[in-house]
Amino acid sequence: MSETPLDLTLDAPALTAQLVDFPSVSGTEKPLADAVEEALRALPHLTVDRFGNNVVARTHLGRAERVVLAGHLDTVPIADNVPSRLDEDGVLWGCGSCDMKSGVAVQLRIAATVPEPNRDLTFVFYDNEEVAADLNGLKLVAEAHPDWLAADFAVLLESSDTEVEGGCQGTLRVILRTKGERSHSARSWMGSNAIHSAAPILAKLAAYEPRRPVIDGLEFHEGLNAVRIEGGVANNVIPDACTVVVNFRYAPDRSEEQALAYVKEFFAGCDIDEFIVDDHTGGALPGLSHPAAAAFMAAVGGVARPKFGWTDVSRFSALGVPAVNYGPGNPLLAHKRDERVDIAMISRAEERLRSWLTA
Amino acid sequence: MSETPLDLTLDAPALTAQLVDFPSVSGTEKPLADAVEEALRALPHLTVDRFGNNVVARTHLGRAERVVLAGHLDTVPIADNVPSRLDEDGVLWGCGSCDMKSGVAVQLRIAATVPEPNRDLTFVFYDNEEVAADLNGLKLVAEAHPDWLAADFAVLLESSDTEVEGGCQGTLRVILRTKGERSHSARSWMGSNAIHSAAPILAKLAAYEPRRPVIDGLEFHEGLNAVRIEGGVANNVIPDACTVVVNFRYAPDRSEEQALAYVKEFFAGCDIDEFIVDDHTGGALPGLSHPAAAAFMAAVGGVARPKFGWTDVSRFSALGVPAVNYGPGNPLLAHKRDERVDIAMISRAEERLRSWLTA
Repeated sequence: MSETPLDLTLDAPALTAQLVDFPSVSGTEKPLADAVEEALRALPHLTVDRFGNNVVARTHLGRAERVVLAGHLDTVPIADNVPSRLDEDGVLWGCGSCDMKSGVAVQLRIAATVPEPNRDLTFVFYDNEEVAADLNGLKLVAEAHPDWLAADFAVLLESSDTEVEGGCQGTLRVILRTKGERSHSARSWMGSNAIHSAAPILAKLAAYEPRRPVIDGLEFHEGLNAVRIEGGVANNVIPDACTVVVNFRYAPDRSEEQALAYVKEFFAGCDIDEFIVDDHTGGALPGLSHPAAAAFMAAVGGVARPKFGWTDVSRFSALGVPAVNYGPGNPLLAHKRDERVDIAMISRAEERLRSWLTA
Repeated sequence: MSETPLDLTLDAPALTAQLVDFPSVSGTEKPLADAVEEALRALPHLTVDRFGNNVVARTHLGRAERVVLAGHLDTVPIADNVPSRLDEDGVLWGCGSCDMKSGVAVQLRIAATVPEPNRDLTFVFYDNEEVAADLNGLKLVAEAHPDWLAADFAVLLESSDTEVEGGCQGTLRVILRTKGERSHSARSWMGSNAIHSAAPILAKLAAYEPRRPVIDGLEFHEGLNAVRIEGGVANNVIPDACTVVVNFRYAPDRSEEQALAYVKEFFAGCDIDEFIVDDHTGGALPGLSHPAAAAFMAAVGGVARPKFGWTDVSRFSALGVPAVNYGPGNPLLAHKRDERVDIAMISRAEERLRSWLTA
């Protein structure tokens, strides 16, 4: 039994405060995972599985559809912003209040208060979302127990201002190296300048026009950018190497192969000595045309918007499960010292999910 | 009295070997400066002055002209290449053999064996040539005792394959900074990419055509190069700053002001946020039309060639003393582990200087 049991009879804002006051910085999620597991095991309509500090709870009502409600338990490091504080304007302050203990509170409240949902439910609570991708608990569960995540649709309760964010863009990072030949800069014509050889790469990037495709009614927005450049040996040496790191954020109608081919073609004609794929993760289609997603959209209202950043929805997408982000909190406040959430938004998220799942 | 007196009765190659075996890495020249001072004080036709580890010896014969023979005492760090070794092909190996203890040996031999030169002579031996410019002994002597260096003409015995190298090019280093605005690379259109803003700078550099002016019969060769570039914050952040370090090597018919104006004009139209002059040293005109220089050229023979790299001849030039490089050794072997000098070249340099000064 955990030292600090979670009280699922609290309303979602109060439960959020209890969760913020229960520190769970990435790598230290075990006590909170224990408390979540214990609270869920107390609910007779759910079966509970655990893998590491990841907890998965499911209903088994034989419904025609199954949906996942997922959230991560960890936070970025605390920055003098715990314990939580509720101000007179109904704003709850504290580490994780926005990203994403308010979302986790909504998950727990739905788990506790909707014993007979109209769709079978799978609740996923996972660790290490805020750190390196290879530690990510959702990734590890997907690899070890993909059946636990099987569903028709998934909602990731990351903060999104309680607006539906559909799909996510892919991200490809390539390293482009140009080559030259060293010489003393006093006799520069004896060498060949690798930094100058990078000029066409930068010229192409500067002239790049982003594509903005509309997919499932959402307008995505691509981007192709140098994120790093480095070259030089000494102040009196013509440099023989220059490295440009380029990040391509692409809409989910491109496959990984197509995205890579696009970038290769984009830089064709630049005199690139080495072209290295440093990192690559595909995007996720919004999946909003799926019936479960359409019903979800109808229930929560508003207009879906595209998700530009890469999120864990793409893990569900890779498993064949359409997924969206939908949760309380302003995503721009995540990871900030003054992280906070409007508690009315937490209640709204809870109500809308409940109405979708009980209609 | 120094522990290892120098023997000026040795021929110049043997004296070079003795000097190589007398370590004097920059910053540790004192014992060698002591030995040089002691050897020169033993010569009755010279007066000797000392400032730090710099030694200046002069004749006072009332000749119509005075010429300087100058050389530095220090070497780059020893790299398993001391003591010296003379091979069967007449090549002397060792740290400083080329840069420039063979030149120093020639200076010392002229000092010892030409008591009544046809021009008054000033011998300058200085320290810290191989390190930061503000430590350079010739610079410090020029500032503290410019009268010690007063002359009509100067020969710096730096290795030049015993060919006359006239003047030297100036060197200007500027730092160009472009500015942008950070944003997450998933939403790159919210920011402004400073690396992309550097594209016109690199494009201009890549298209640069060097000027090759002929001055005093010597063809110089300018160069304008990026020697460093750096930009980037993180792999997922649009960078808000990019820095390009540019080195302009320019012919000595441009003043420092003109060189700076040229570079400013060259990059006009590029969107540069900061333009910083990081380092600037003017060039030196060849001065080969001066009578003393013409007589020197006639005596040593060959065809003068331009000096592209910056050398201490420009310090003499700044004092109003035309100066050239002329010394034994292949300059491309300087600072190398396999540094070496053909001893026939040392003897040739000594003979030609003697014939010039005794004709």
